[in-house]
Amino acid sequence: MALHFQRELDRLRKRLLEIGSMVEEAVDRSIRALLDRDQALARETITGDTRIDRAEVEVEEDCLKLLALYQPVAGDLRLVASVLKINNDLERMGDLAVNIAERVEVLAGLDMVAGVSEDLELLARKSRDALRRSLDSFTRQDTALAREICSRDDEVDDLNRKIIERLKDVMRNDREHVDAALQLFSISRHLERIADHATNIAEDVVYLVEGQIVRHPHG
Amino acid sequence: MALHFQRELDRLRKRLLEIGSMVEEAVDRSIRALLDRDQALARETITGDTRIDRAEVEVEEDCLKLLALYQPVAGDLRLVASVLKINNDLERMGDLAVNIAERVEVLAGLDMVAGVSEDLELLARKSRDALRRSLDSFTRQDTALAREICSRDDEVDDLNRKIIERLKDVMRNDREHVDAALQLFSISRHLERIADHATNIAEDVVYLVEGQIVRHPHG
Repeated sequence: MALHFQRELDRLRKRLLEIGSMVEEAVDRSIRALLDRDQALARETITGDTRIDRAEVEVEEDCLKLLALYQPVAGDLRLVASVLKINNDLERMGDLAVNIAERVEVLAGLDMVAGVSEDLELLARKSRDALRRSLDSFTRQDTALAREICSRDDEVDDLNRKIIERLKDVMRNDREHVDAALQLFSISRHLERIADHATNIAEDVVYLVEGQIVRHPHG
Repeated sequence: MALHFQRELDRLRKRLLEIGSMVEEAVDRSIRALLDRDQALARETITGDTRIDRAEVEVEEDCLKLLALYQPVAGDLRLVASVLKINNDLERMGDLAVNIAERVEVLAGLDMVAGVSEDLELLARKSRDALRRSLDSFTRQDTALAREICSRDDEVDDLNRKIIERLKDVMRNDREHVDAALQLFSISRHLERIADHATNIAEDVVYLVEGQIVRHPHG
């Protein structure tokens, strides 16, 4: 029974990481679609989300089944609880990749906004890296890495603010580009939220390993 | 033991509804702060969030303790799992109320945008109602109400889109109001996301009562 349960837990961990890979791919695709203005890739991101949604529901059902069948305690219980939460964050990141891809589709008919691509590309890279590293911290149960991800979320927030200031300038001074700037405004916020979810995952890893809930540090 | 456990479940249910009330209050406050341009109320919303955050962590800890101590199955397990998820959605709604209040603070220094207040007020009412009714559907385990909340989310989306179109017009034709319009753009999206979380709660109620995961209907 115990051995069987450990095998089920390994399987659960693996399935979560599979969803992680799918979401990483979706985020990557949406970013490349944005930077290369690639409509086909944007479409792929949107249609591909069904697979992520289905996998998320399955992992949640697996978690509930494991809780009911094996009634885990201590570290095993924390693992299942963490998988439930990380699964949820990953699914939302998939949705954000879809949101970005939808903005890319609208952008296709518009002139590009000058002076913002470089920062957007940097923000995209930082958000994608945060996702990548949050999954690494889960795989390796590495709380030092997890804490680093949490502490570096400010960089993403600052960059997002900088981009939004630039876009506001564009909107004020160049009414031809209001539509495009607004799409990029949404994209910048979506990227920032992807990094936020990566921070959530990192916080769950700390909880998983140390049994300590570290979110809401101001509380 | 069984009696004690049922008492603990009642207590958990009650605590979740307490958080629900706090979040309702926060959303109400942020909306009134917006409509009345009331800076003191905006401040209150922001500082009050610490209480919600703390309560959310406590409810999550309670859920994990109950899972570990009593190893519930079937309906009881679904209840604890649902509370875990609803708790998370409520906390995020609290954050969105804070986001709205922060926008209200920025708006204080700006001229108001004409022709959008009525729709924003309507959107605010719909989002707040969705939250209210999602909590009712949980209290009464009313899946008919829960399904109605899910099906009516489109109204909120449509209204949000209408507001955004109006704000785009303002940005294009009235550069003096770009800043204010952008703040309202964010507020409109925050309100829409509050209604989204209410839909998540309603979906969890269906799962809780019927044992069926109903999100991602396209999947």
